[in-house]
Amino acid sequence: MAENAESRGTIARLSTTDADFDTTLEALLAWEGVSDAQVRQRVDEILHAVRTRGDAALVETSNRFDRLSVSSMAELTLDKARLRQAHDGLPAEQRDALALAAERIRAYHEHQKPESWQYTEANGTVLGQKVTPLDRAGIYVPGGKAAYPSSVLMNAIPAHVAGVSEIVMVVPTPDGVLNELVLAAAYLAGVDQVFTVGGAQAVAALAYGTESVPRVDKIVGPGNIYVATAKRAVFGQVGIDMIAGPSEILVLSDGGTDPEWLAMDLFSQAEHDEDAQAILVSWDADHIADVEAAIERLLPTMEREPIIRASLEKRGALIACADREEALALANRIAPEHLELSVDDPESLLPGIRHAGAIFMGRYTAEALGDYCAGPNHVLPTSGTARFSSPLGVYDFQKRSSIIHCSAEGASTLGRTASVLARGESLTAHARSAENRIRKD
Amino acid sequence: MAENAESRGTIARLSTTDADFDTTLEALLAWEGVSDAQVRQRVDEILHAVRTRGDAALVETSNRFDRLSVSSMAELTLDKARLRQAHDGLPAEQRDALALAAERIRAYHEHQKPESWQYTEANGTVLGQKVTPLDRAGIYVPGGKAAYPSSVLMNAIPAHVAGVSEIVMVVPTPDGVLNELVLAAAYLAGVDQVFTVGGAQAVAALAYGTESVPRVDKIVGPGNIYVATAKRAVFGQVGIDMIAGPSEILVLSDGGTDPEWLAMDLFSQAEHDEDAQAILVSWDADHIADVEAAIERLLPTMEREPIIRASLEKRGALIACADREEALALANRIAPEHLELSVDDPESLLPGIRHAGAIFMGRYTAEALGDYCAGPNHVLPTSGTARFSSPLGVYDFQKRSSIIHCSAEGASTLGRTASVLARGESLTAHARSAENRIRKD
Repeated sequence: MAENAESRGTIARLSTTDADFDTTLEALLAWEGVSDAQVRQRVDEILHAVRTRGDAALVETSNRFDRLSVSSMAELTLDKARLRQAHDGLPAEQRDALALAAERIRAYHEHQKPESWQYTEANGTVLGQKVTPLDRAGIYVPGGKAAYPSSVLMNAIPAHVAGVSEIVMVVPTPDGVLNELVLAAAYLAGVDQVFTVGGAQAVAALAYGTESVPRVDKIVGPGNIYVATAKRAVFGQVGIDMIAGPSEILVLSDGGTDPEWLAMDLFSQAEHDEDAQAILVSWDADHIADVEAAIERLLPTMEREPIIRASLEKRGALIACADREEALALANRIAPEHLELSVDDPESLLPGIRHAGAIFMGRYTAEALGDYCAGPNHVLPTSGTARFSSPLGVYDFQKRSSIIHCSAEGASTLGRTASVLARGESLTAHARSAENRIRKD
Repeated sequence: MAENAESRGTIARLSTTDADFDTTLEALLAWEGVSDAQVRQRVDEILHAVRTRGDAALVETSNRFDRLSVSSMAELTLDKARLRQAHDGLPAEQRDALALAAERIRAYHEHQKPESWQYTEANGTVLGQKVTPLDRAGIYVPGGKAAYPSSVLMNAIPAHVAGVSEIVMVVPTPDGVLNELVLAAAYLAGVDQVFTVGGAQAVAALAYGTESVPRVDKIVGPGNIYVATAKRAVFGQVGIDMIAGPSEILVLSDGGTDPEWLAMDLFSQAEHDEDAQAILVSWDADHIADVEAAIERLLPTMEREPIIRASLEKRGALIACADREEALALANRIAPEHLELSVDDPESLLPGIRHAGAIFMGRYTAEALGDYCAGPNHVLPTSGTARFSSPLGVYDFQKRSSIIHCSAEGASTLGRTASVLARGESLTAHARSAENRIRKD
């Protein structure tokens, strides 16, 4: 946490010339989502219960954790007709907005579909790669205040575009509260079945299957520490997406964007929760002061003011740097989930950016547009994981198989090389298997 | 485990018409790589030690677990000159075979390189995806009997093709024993630096960095239960590849391949270790009997006979099925790491195969050719994880960033939709950020 406590406003002001800048930045960025032994123990128990006792354990744990009183999985199952009903019952404005968002997300993700390929060598040997969809995907949708219909679209549509045959969604209903917008989004996104369960028990049901819940091949979607711990535990049994940390934005400004726009862009990140992180970097010191003033001016007008204030105080920063190059270096070091290039010529900065989940270019591209309806996915790598991972995409719901088809001549030639290498590894069955294909003539 | 104990030979004979076939097959396939609480506890301690005490802890744990007596990381570091020396010192036959394998692996993986792309909408809004390599990759190579130079090629070459700037390899040297072939392969594969450390301590060093070992962005490569547990624990801090189970092959034969060839293909899998799994499926009962006879005949001639026998007894099977369709259904149910289509017309079976790590087509394509030098990767999803994961590839060492560049008009149009959806989620800072970009005129 940045501790220039005295005389600071809501958000910390840093400069890359501060003596302790590196340490302060590290502390600000630090985030550890690791669960402790006690959480792991509880999650292990829940996983074991659902794995061994199926529906009965799923009903029990749902009653306990979501404060329900149901007696069977039938009461925790929604079919397509119910999803359609939610969709048809929406006000026209919301229904149209959801439909437009779904259509744009679908169109973008169609561009991600890879092709199978193969090539033939001179001796007739064929090598290639075949791309196939997963049979069944599981989408985890958080309940309560974080139940976002946009997340349903962003998680389910790529699966649908990938050609997944069956998409199963789970969403807890704490105290029995259903979110109609979430169900409507599920309808639009091509979800086949919804179970109103959540937590580690829902992850267990998707990973192992129960009498009612079909076992899936991959589980995607965000959740609390129990969900994240359960996903980590079942990884290998099923595929999982990244384990998400709090959401973050890095705005890189050249000083030419309206400070009130930038303040609101930072707020839009900070309003998610108190651990969300909003950082602005600029080489224009006066501009930074203007953004800070806009923050102080607009903050009292915000509906989620307490959350925004806590987030900005705890994890936000306005960072003054020397120039564009230093700003770029900072962006690559932070590897932000969202990177807003609020500059005149974002194209000139793009080649220098090595790590970012999504890049929002120019003064008009507010992150919020990407969150809902620009088309690209809003499920993005957080906490610096953009160093090695990608937005959720069609590729997360497909897998590849290598294809090798040796001609008689190809096998004979390769057999000689394989034999030498296998014998070098003392694997003589490998060697003899290869040697069987060497031509004797 | 298959328990038709009485009167059976080395390997179980099953039929899809057996009353208990489903149960028997499930038991045969069952594999759980999950580590118990005690292993997790020990791994957590090692991770903590290396994270907090760096090189000092890495030296201590290496001395303890690999029975060494070194006093500094300098003694556990090999530079490129040492790798080259290993390469130049090899017998010509091995050097040539390694070079040919490396060249073919490189050529195949070049085909996997994806392109960045973008498209422009009518109002000038640009959407796209930018592909960039990881900065730094860590390759884990097991020591001792499982130190395979071919694995070094298969893990490091895709990273090199992907454009990774720095490739760091770790390989333990139990009792100080170095494998020259492994070092030579590292040289050929473009590895930049080697640390002779292993186990959870090596994973910790790569994940967190120490004074000597640079922190990497992703760790790939197989290892024992401590390595697998450590990789699972650091997942999120760094990227990891799949957690591998024992290696397996499913041979699907139409009865036309020499039974001795097939016996040797099964042996080549079984010789890896006692948990390796070799299964043959055919709709030709006489042929199955011939393969079984070949197994019994050839087994006593094998150098690794005890391992092969144990593997076949414990996890092997010859399965009689009704026809090609049933064989295909079995292949998809098992989702094997290696699938050998030892049939006359493998092309006709290919469209029906949904899940397999690598598909070896026709009588000439022994799996061993793919293990060493055909070109595709031999790091493949095991234990049914081909349902949702892919061979190791160039894509494992790259990541994508979404690109959104809204025109003024595009932002205005999208802003209206985003505003409706954001207000539906009660995220009013999102809504106001989007509304700022709506044209007032």
